[in-house]
Amino acid sequence: MVILMSPDCRKAEVAEILAAIRGRGFEPRIISSLSRTVIGIVEEMHHGRVEEMTALLSGLPGVEGIETFGGSFKLASREFRPERTIIRVRDKYIGGAPVVMAGPCAVESRESILRIAEMAAASGASFLRGGAFKPRTSPYSFRGLKEEGLKYLREASNLTGLPVVTEVLTPEDVPLVAEYADVLQIGARNMQNYALLEAAGETDRPVFLKRGLMATIKELLLSAEYILAKGNSQVILCERGIRTFEPATRNTLDLSAVPLLKEMTHLPVVVDPSHASGKRELVPALALAAVAAGADGLMLEVHDNPEAALSDGRQSLTLEAFDYLMKKIERVSMAIHESETGELKCA
Amino acid sequence: MVILMSPDCRKAEVAEILAAIRGRGFEPRIISSLSRTVIGIVEEMHHGRVEEMTALLSGLPGVEGIETFGGSFKLASREFRPERTIIRVRDKYIGGAPVVMAGPCAVESRESILRIAEMAAASGASFLRGGAFKPRTSPYSFRGLKEEGLKYLREASNLTGLPVVTEVLTPEDVPLVAEYADVLQIGARNMQNYALLEAAGETDRPVFLKRGLMATIKELLLSAEYILAKGNSQVILCERGIRTFEPATRNTLDLSAVPLLKEMTHLPVVVDPSHASGKRELVPALALAAVAAGADGLMLEVHDNPEAALSDGRQSLTLEAFDYLMKKIERVSMAIHESETGELKCA
Amino acid sequence: MVILMSPDCRKAEVAEILAAIRGRGFEPRIISSLSRTVIGIVEEMHHGRVEEMTALLSGLPGVEGIETFGGSFKLASREFRPERTIIRVRDKYIGGAPVVMAGPCAVESRESILRIAEMAAASGASFLRGGAFKPRTSPYSFRGLKEEGLKYLREASNLTGLPVVTEVLTPEDVPLVAEYADVLQIGARNMQNYALLEAAGETDRPVFLKRGLMATIKELLLSAEYILAKGNSQVILCERGIRTFEPATRNTLDLSAVPLLKEMTHLPVVVDPSHASGKRELVPALALAAVAAGADGLMLEVHDNPEAALSDGRQSLTLEAFDYLMKKIERVSMAIHESETGELKCA
Amino acid sequence: MVILMSPDCRKAEVAEILAAIRGRGFEPRIISSLSRTVIGIVEEMHHGRVEEMTALLSGLPGVEGIETFGGSFKLASREFRPERTIIRVRDKYIGGAPVVMAGPCAVESRESILRIAEMAAASGASFLRGGAFKPRTSPYSFRGLKEEGLKYLREASNLTGLPVVTEVLTPEDVPLVAEYADVLQIGARNMQNYALLEAAGETDRPVFLKRGLMATIKELLLSAEYILAKGNSQVILCERGIRTFEPATRNTLDLSAVPLLKEMTHLPVVVDPSHASGKRELVPALALAAVAAGADGLMLEVHDNPEAALSDGRQSLTLEAFDYLMKKIERVSMAIHESETGELKCA
Repeated sequence: MVILMSPDCRKAEVAEILAAIRGRGFEPRIISSLSRTVIGIVEEMHHGRVEEMTALLSGLPGVEGIETFGGSFKLASREFRPERTIIRVRDKYIGGAPVVMAGPCAVESRESILRIAEMAAASGASFLRGGAFKPRTSPYSFRGLKEEGLKYLREASNLTGLPVVTEVLTPEDVPLVAEYADVLQIGARNMQNYALLEAAGETDRPVFLKRGLMATIKELLLSAEYILAKGNSQVILCERGIRTFEPATRNTLDLSAVPLLKEMTHLPVVVDPSHASGKRELVPALALAAVAAGADGLMLEVHDNPEAALSDGRQSLTLEAFDYLMKKIERVSMAIHESETGELKCA
Repeated sequence: MVILMSPDCRKAEVAEILAAIRGRGFEPRIISSLSRTVIGIVEEMHHGRVEEMTALLSGLPGVEGIETFGGSFKLASREFRPERTIIRVRDKYIGGAPVVMAGPCAVESRESILRIAEMAAASGASFLRGGAFKPRTSPYSFRGLKEEGLKYLREASNLTGLPVVTEVLTPEDVPLVAEYADVLQIGARNMQNYALLEAAGETDRPVFLKRGLMATIKELLLSAEYILAKGNSQVILCERGIRTFEPATRNTLDLSAVPLLKEMTHLPVVVDPSHASGKRELVPALALAAVAAGADGLMLEVHDNPEAALSDGRQSLTLEAFDYLMKKIERVSMAIHESETGELKCA
Repeated sequence: MVILMSPDCRKAEVAEILAAIRGRGFEPRIISSLSRTVIGIVEEMHHGRVEEMTALLSGLPGVEGIETFGGSFKLASREFRPERTIIRVRDKYIGGAPVVMAGPCAVESRESILRIAEMAAASGASFLRGGAFKPRTSPYSFRGLKEEGLKYLREASNLTGLPVVTEVLTPEDVPLVAEYADVLQIGARNMQNYALLEAAGETDRPVFLKRGLMATIKELLLSAEYILAKGNSQVILCERGIRTFEPATRNTLDLSAVPLLKEMTHLPVVVDPSHASGKRELVPALALAAVAAGADGLMLEVHDNPEAALSDGRQSLTLEAFDYLMKKIERVSMAIHESETGELKCA
Repeated sequence: MVILMSPDCRKAEVAEILAAIRGRGFEPRIISSLSRTVIGIVEEMHHGRVEEMTALLSGLPGVEGIETFGGSFKLASREFRPERTIIRVRDKYIGGAPVVMAGPCAVESRESILRIAEMAAASGASFLRGGAFKPRTSPYSFRGLKEEGLKYLREASNLTGLPVVTEVLTPEDVPLVAEYADVLQIGARNMQNYALLEAAGETDRPVFLKRGLMATIKELLLSAEYILAKGNSQVILCERGIRTFEPATRNTLDLSAVPLLKEMTHLPVVVDPSHASGKRELVPALALAAVAAGADGLMLEVHDNPEAALSDGRQSLTLEAFDYLMKKIERVSMAIHESETGELKCA
């Protein structure tokens, strides 16, 4: 249940609403927004209670509306927040010119991650990615260096200034990962792990939420809603390929998701062509296509020795290929940006 | 890493292996099997350690082989265990003649679950299903009665003798749910929630593992392997529909999974046509088809008042329709069983 | 455009309608139906003409209604024809107790097809299938014996009494194939080859229409509508698997299509588990499941020497396996039929 | 069967091969190639004959190799022809800088197509598209103006200089359509209509071949192979979206197909974002993405009054939106081209 206060409501009215909610045994939550105050009750209610609370609260002063929306998303929608969300992470911004998050699939050693981070920064990357906790289809595969890996990521970040994006797999690990990471990544397999979404929603860290392999765009937004409803408004959405019948690529990158999400939500949208295609030779074309489609950023796998990588080496760019691609990305980004302002900058 | 002991190895040899593993800082785990002793090391190892441990252990007496199998499953395979696994839950058996697990999508009230359980038992159901913790796509939907719901399920079970199958959503909830439930259900969205799989694998409760909407049959078996590798050999697999392009049903029930899984694994296979189709009028035909395809059981949604159900009422059978269907199921089951013995029993 | 005449309309009124339509330059077509007269105009009309014709005809006596239905099907629907369509082919009937259509993927030689036909008949098959014109993904694959193959099929049919179902690939071949075949098969790749649908619709042969690999159920019915709209009311629908992400089977057999089609249309529904699964070891379970789901028949690939088959040998049953399966099919069919009448026949 | 002659073979040797083939009752076909002579025998052969012919021909002088390749494509592959195919149509070239094919879904009237063609040409389009023969899912939908529509297209082409791309639905219509059209389009539903592919392969018109909704990339190339094997080497491939589970777009545009096809084949690749997305507001982003991914061209639906279009108006750009998009396409194309030469032209 979400209570929208009128734009000109008074503080005393907000306080009265909070008291009324607590008086009925629920815990209200202020969901801040630039344009108005929104109060959420995230605890579940039985149907009868929903009706009772709606009747009670809608009569109080300062309340503009109450929404219960069964199957839909609200906080993630553009009608709720028309202006685009720009997320600041240290000195970087996600939501304007496209940013590039680069790094290996998994952190493998201190030396390797430091070297990759330095090279990625030199080529113009804005964020460092790398997995310390790895979800693996088989219980017998390498699952990451865990806290040791987080420490190496932090060291690489301190050295290069690149904020760290890294995955967290369980609600219990959220505090540990949040201690080292700048952005918490929730992977495709966990897109509907609601306890994890809510745990991430209770931190002050931006959350990088990947679309599930077989999740619709609406379901992605409903999963983002779980995080937003906990009061964390910093969610970055990531398209990373969906499962289809085509065997030539690991997944089918759904670039239509970029303009569609831009219509439906104010949250930034990043594309990961490495995991989508599973083949490094396809990554440059898809990365450029994502930028041309209007993505706010790219997540790219880069490795100093892809053939020896412990996971997903087949899809990692070499550092040289990454450096070359970064120059192309800049040109396409410039071409797109020029076209939006309606004039050629370099003409 | 899994160490297969030779069928005639001695106890002292097993003890020596266990000591050697502990001496290297790992925690060995006996994975019992009817036909031979198997020792597992589930903790992750770096590549170097894998080689070191393999060299060490393969030289010890009584060891027949060591397998590390990157992307494949072992404990779930028929080559590892040729005989079919039959799982006993109180006085019921899963893995022989088909069993029926019936009940509402969500436990809604004490009265309702007691009434449904009594009627389901009277119609011949063997297990009671019902969700107390409900995973919901939207954060604003009803998420179940939680512990209160578990208590009602327990009461209904005590009254009717039907063991309870109910879903658990997070590793932390496993002990609580295991206190009330006879079988722990892991839902489709959580099929690759590895922390949850491992937590369930550490209990002594059978685990009912649903195939993810986007999961291949091999991935389902690899998720079962996570549970088996923790030493819990009681895993029941459930086909419940996959996502396809067809909009006329909620999901496409993949009945080919039944004979395929029978070839690939010794674990029992149950089919849930209610969630697959999403339409109650399709459930009887698909339930009978599943039995004819060789399923070891069915999970069916039944409700005393489907139109008023808090979730998934559209796919729940009425108690009358369920009673009628149970008679048909028995006849098809008899026809299939007769054909396997090669003679008509009633001829 | 379809003109529904009132059930009690007079012959003179029908004649007047036909004349009015011809007077506007269109060719009317009587689409016979057991319950009422229906007149179709299948030629395309511009939008303006649709309005003009509707105004003209709706004012004439005996006309109950006029439908233009853009995206929907009419003649195939159960509301148009509530009673089930039963199709007679020589002395066989499709639409009652399940029939079995058996034979090789492709006709390979006279000896082979005669031997298979005799054995299939002896085991209880009702129809002989076999391709003389084969659609092949590659231009370099064997495309069938063509007219020579048709002659062998006819000879095998005369010998055994089994009517022949065989595929036709192009509108030009329709007369040739219709000369030898009892039932014209239109394959999955041609489900939306509209010229072919219409050419088959203009014959007096029943048409066996296979669902496309990625066709929705509604699209299958719309393709059937093309045939029905040409005045040929004898259409048999065939579910043969759809394309999904699952690699373990060639296609995913969608058995939900059986009860769904039974709700939506009066046309009989046959299932082909051989092409769906692509693996002979899965065929028996899926064949029995199809019968239990209520299918009006099965199409099964059978070969006297599957390992040497020129196409699709991997999915063909041996003659022995087919014989054994036929006995099982009979038992499941009996169990289903018993349950419908509500009593056990052999009790 | 394809016979590759050695690069330095003599004319007399080729003549001898042709005679030998005719002597065995087959009709050889010279498949010209810039780099060497290739002789094809497209007629089907029984297995025994394949062996016999291979033995016979491989002994003759000038023959470098013989390939029968069951399930694979040859003439479409880059190993067969390393240099890219550039197709000239009047004064336009497909295969270099991206070309734009624009026009309405269906030709609706003379006035409309002339107006659209003039405006499209003024905005920089290179080809005029428009359907005179329309394949429709329902038999009751508008199927195009047929020859009348072809005449209007020709008139519009003569007026503007834009070559015409238009769909042909059946083998019989190929001569008629080829009389008016510059490029024959084979639509997605007909991608595996082999008679149609072969009829188009026997003309001297370039063929625009759309990927089927359910077709893999390999199957698309095998369908192209049908055309190439008839001696027509001018095939343009078109990615236009595949069917997936996602309901927010009509189809899922698979842009990975662009770099993949560029690796696998020498044929040019065009993208149709209008049919893929089904929503005009997504078309600009996807069009730019396709160009950035390296497509050789775009097919775009444009209409002077989309809301009143007889088919697919929902996905057609207005003439104004098209004009604006053309400028963006040029900039992205320039950015991509610059990056390939490694220097900014305008810097």
